[in-house]
Amino acid sequence: MDLALAEARRAVEQGEVPIGAVVVIDGEVVSARHNERESTADPTAHAEILALRDAAAALGTSRLDGAVLVSTLEPCPMCAGAAVMARVARVVFAAEDPKAGACGTLYNLGADPRLNHNFEVAAGVGRDESAALLKDFFAARR
Amino acid sequence: MDLALAEARRAVEQGEVPIGAVVVIDGEVVSARHNERESTADPTAHAEILALRDAAAALGTSRLDGAVLVSTLEPCPMCAGAAVMARVARVVFAAEDPKAGACGTLYNLGADPRLNHNFEVAAGVGRDESAALLKDFFAARR
Repeated sequence: MDLALAEARRAVEQGEVPIGAVVVIDGEVVSARHNERESTADPTAHAEILALRDAAAALGTSRLDGAVLVSTLEPCPMCAGAAVMARVARVVFAAEDPKAGACGTLYNLGADPRLNHNFEVAAGVGRDESAALLKDFFAARR
Repeated sequence: MDLALAEARRAVEQGEVPIGAVVVIDGEVVSARHNERESTADPTAHAEILALRDAAAALGTSRLDGAVLVSTLEPCPMCAGAAVMARVARVVFAAEDPKAGACGTLYNLGADPRLNHNFEVAAGVGRDESAALLKDFFAARR
């Protein structure tokens, strides 16, 4: 989570919403990205999507068996859906997202037995720092 | 939908699951893509994600106001979530997806008032052809 939070801080420097994500497999960090929606004008450029794509590219496979997706904010439906597609084993996030959270708040995609893959969810590590980064970012924008 | 179905047929030639998607804005086709998960090893390379990204790149904005996302299969949570992120006005799909459909079957993300954007959904145009393409593809693989 420290690495994901570092990515989130890097996002702020670039005028991006401070959200960072990391993919860990067998205890090794395979990818680390932050939100790039503003700079790329790509509606799918959330930190989690970018980190999952990087990890798949690094491993040469779309199935990230055993992977842990670590994010500073609870993944939205798009990103939680991507975690299902990538077949990650676990999602760890820092702060809950009351507006779009899809790993327990509004939806819980990783626990839906109708989907073809499920994953574990753990929340809370780094919550205060992640929430403070987001709060400061949006306060400064107003 | 004819263009999306043509993309789906192109996918078959490349050994990809036959799903095509098109983004239309103001009556003009802005992007047309098919599933590329196999060839790219990218877990997010669904036709809809690729078409939305292409459309945003073509327009230079992540907000595809007024856009119609046309897909030969009902978008999954990842793709329907991307349609929310891209703020499309409407999703049109051919065949329902009982295993992952997130535009009315398992979920209905575009109609969830808790999310920060909603979109209309229309289904059924081209259903038989889309379903036949998918059925034939998976039958040939067995």
